[in-house]
Amino acid sequence: MTDPNTARLDAQIAFLKEADKLKSVLRASKLIDGTRHENSAEHSWHIMLYTLVLADQAGPGVSIDRVIRMLLLHDLVEIDAGDAPIHGSVDHAAMAIKEAAAARRLFGMLPEDQGADFLALWQEFEAAESPDAQFAKAIDRVQTPVLNLETDGGSWIDYNVTLEQLDLRVGKPIHRGAPGLWAWLRPKIAAFFASRAA
Amino acid sequence: MTDPNTARLDAQIAFLKEADKLKSVLRASKLIDGTRHENSAEHSWHIMLYTLVLADQAGPGVSIDRVIRMLLLHDLVEIDAGDAPIHGSVDHAAMAIKEAAAARRLFGMLPEDQGADFLALWQEFEAAESPDAQFAKAIDRVQTPVLNLETDGGSWIDYNVTLEQLDLRVGKPIHRGAPGLWAWLRPKIAAFFASRAA
Repeated sequence: MTDPNTARLDAQIAFLKEADKLKSVLRASKLIDGTRHENSAEHSWHIMLYTLVLADQAGPGVSIDRVIRMLLLHDLVEIDAGDAPIHGSVDHAAMAIKEAAAARRLFGMLPEDQGADFLALWQEFEAAESPDAQFAKAIDRVQTPVLNLETDGGSWIDYNVTLEQLDLRVGKPIHRGAPGLWAWLRPKIAAFFASRAA
Repeated sequence: MTDPNTARLDAQIAFLKEADKLKSVLRASKLIDGTRHENSAEHSWHIMLYTLVLADQAGPGVSIDRVIRMLLLHDLVEIDAGDAPIHGSVDHAAMAIKEAAAARRLFGMLPEDQGADFLALWQEFEAAESPDAQFAKAIDRVQTPVLNLETDGGSWIDYNVTLEQLDLRVGKPIHRGAPGLWAWLRPKIAAFFASRAA
């Protein structure tokens, strides 16, 4: 008979091995040095670092540690569902169904209590209604513009993105969760697009 | 004149852009599917996930959120100092000096209050004396054995590692910070080495 600690660890380690696959999910964006596309595991690490560094941009009532936990888990569903580029043409309803199924499968590998906790945290992130989730979503949106400004437009050029589209898809969630950050970033983005039009 | 929020954000974003380089620091170990070497950014993400999943292996007084913050920062020094493979022949004193200089340079890019906080957390991790740091060190050591067991020995074979060396370099820190985890892992490692000797 397997003792309960062993059975629990067997399930947890199986989940952690499965999670390794997130290192092979590629995003539309590249590293700052342009050498290759970024994967979703290293992206997750980077935006958790953004969260810790930019913690004082969060509104009252935001728990930075809960936001970090959310961002640690938020992209795992891409192991089954893939990454949906924010500026690509994506069927969002179909994608939401695929991601929900992925969350059930992946978090379902864990001991029941833990799987339920992780699923609830991921659902809170996706719903983007709580202050923690809104800050997490803002941070998740801010890394790519910082990168694109550094790399002559990066994925904005690849996807023919306009400033109006950016205001809607990127500006809106950043402004909602971290208005000071958007106030800092928006003029830089506007200057970039003005220089391209000139 | 630059307002204080702008100056603070300028410094913070410069640090976050510099941190992108951790995605290009390669480790001795490979992905579970064997397709390429793992980098230190995605490794950091993975062991933070290990920490959250294996939280109930931590002793009393361990703050999981502080451990996650430690592991988020712990490898950044490799941007300047490179990764020192645990089983490679490394001059540990020289490495410690290089890493300390790297920590001063990198965390020195941040606003002073924040840079000092991050440096203190990194130093606490390196000292491996507090319960949080000892759990962080245990988790940092556990991912590679799990991976190597999955991949016919992986970096153990590349570096000709013996079970005795593993007990010292890997077993000791895991047992100290997460004894239940070592009790689960040690028989699997011993069985692997026994099968190789047979």
